[in-house]
Amino acid sequence: MTGGDTDAPASPARTIPPRELSVWALPGIPEIAAGDNLVALILAAAAARPLMDGDILVVTSKIVSKAEGRLVRAEDREAAISAETARVVATRNGTRIVENRLGIVGAAAGVDASNVPAGTVLLLPEDPDRSARILAAGIRAAGPHIGVILSDTIGRPWREGQTDIAIGAAGVRVFDELEGTPDSAGRPLAVTRPCLADEIAAAGDLVKGKTFGLPVAVVRGYADAVGPLDLPGARSIIRTSETDMFRFGSDEAYAAGFAAGLNAVADTESSRS
Amino acid sequence: MTGGDTDAPASPARTIPPRELSVWALPGIPEIAAGDNLVALILAAAAARPLMDGDILVVTSKIVSKAEGRLVRAEDREAAISAETARVVATRNGTRIVENRLGIVGAAAGVDASNVPAGTVLLLPEDPDRSARILAAGIRAAGPHIGVILSDTIGRPWREGQTDIAIGAAGVRVFDELEGTPDSAGRPLAVTRPCLADEIAAAGDLVKGKTFGLPVAVVRGYADAVGPLDLPGARSIIRTSETDMFRFGSDEAYAAGFAAGLNAVADTESSRS
Repeated sequence: MTGGDTDAPASPARTIPPRELSVWALPGIPEIAAGDNLVALILAAAAARPLMDGDILVVTSKIVSKAEGRLVRAEDREAAISAETARVVATRNGTRIVENRLGIVGAAAGVDASNVPAGTVLLLPEDPDRSARILAAGIRAAGPHIGVILSDTIGRPWREGQTDIAIGAAGVRVFDELEGTPDSAGRPLAVTRPCLADEIAAAGDLVKGKTFGLPVAVVRGYADAVGPLDLPGARSIIRTSETDMFRFGSDEAYAAGFAAGLNAVADTESSRS
Repeated sequence: MTGGDTDAPASPARTIPPRELSVWALPGIPEIAAGDNLVALILAAAAARPLMDGDILVVTSKIVSKAEGRLVRAEDREAAISAETARVVATRNGTRIVENRLGIVGAAAGVDASNVPAGTVLLLPEDPDRSARILAAGIRAAGPHIGVILSDTIGRPWREGQTDIAIGAAGVRVFDELEGTPDSAGRPLAVTRPCLADEIAAAGDLVKGKTFGLPVAVVRGYADAVGPLDLPGARSIIRTSETDMFRFGSDEAYAAGFAAGLNAVADTESSRS
């Protein structure tokens, strides 16, 4: 098994040149306000170390929301969460896990009260894939053929803490399609479909951090993931309800089952009498 | 808001120098067999570009399993899955989502049939945090003060595809503890606790890939996460059952509730007669 010789004869494993990623945050992006031109601000921030074809920008969705004027008064926080909620998945001790209108399952529907002025909350972009496309198209028009991922921070059901995921994507493959690719023993890798976009979002978070005023990361070295702007966006990462084994919290599903069990007996009783 | 001046007066946001990560895979690690000395193999693979203090090694848990002799005959695959299973969380269409003996929730309890010889399956390391400590201690004894993360590939309930996560860790902070840190508006970031170890595992996967024979990645540039070997391991990432809102699949919880509803009526009936 070798790691690098791309001139070697075809082997059962895919021969991909070993890659090296460089990941850094763009310095000097100011606090963003509604109407700000993110393309211009990002290009200015990248001036000292220009973007190159094949770079992937990981943009904290929060600054896109701010530029798009998605800040609302904090008095409306609960109403804002409800408006962004497609359905409640589970609730416990004041935490509401919901599926938001984008299909993303998480706490508070992505309504954010951190890093915004007191008295306000920030909603997610209206359509993060569209926002990513607009950003990517604007930057590509200025030169470099880059991809854009909009990231957000989200919890996980069985693991403590949060990681960043992709909630929007443009011009970048969101999955590494390995299905059917032979593994190193020559057998097909049946179910492996790494979510590149989420892994790139996570890598970007490592240099952006949450509190440092560094909302845009550059990931250089994965140019083979960068492609046309009409590649499927982050919406394609959302699992459909047909394959969702955790559509409701355990307590919620149990309670619904319990009520149905009671009713089933009542129905039998009433049909007997 | 600036990204870089570490001599600036204290601001509400933490002043952390902007970091740049370099992420690459070690070339030339051979197919691993039981008893192989991973410390020696990793150091040899790193000879051309020596490891430095503060580097974090992301090691595919599979090679640790192989070195530890965790390969079992494939005839025993279902038995192996059952033996590794602490409890079944959900089943659908032949997919068993289980909590394994390490507390990790995923498909097939981490029992792996890819990238192993035909007729065999590979179990996870007996104790991945211990394995990570042994590796880290061995490499540190040879010089560089590195951290080690053992990674595995796992699916997510509400998102398609897989990402790599940390199933073992040694000498590296698994969480970035931001709780109480002021955000850029000076208010405490109440609930944010980024899971560094999982984000670093994801970044490592981007250069390792699944099929290229590159099982070890180096993440350089996050030295402030590297610390003593007795820092909490990846086990500390596992959510406890008390805070797990998705302890069972929706169908399983509903069925349990339904049966309890039927029984509740039966109990009432029998106490009445």
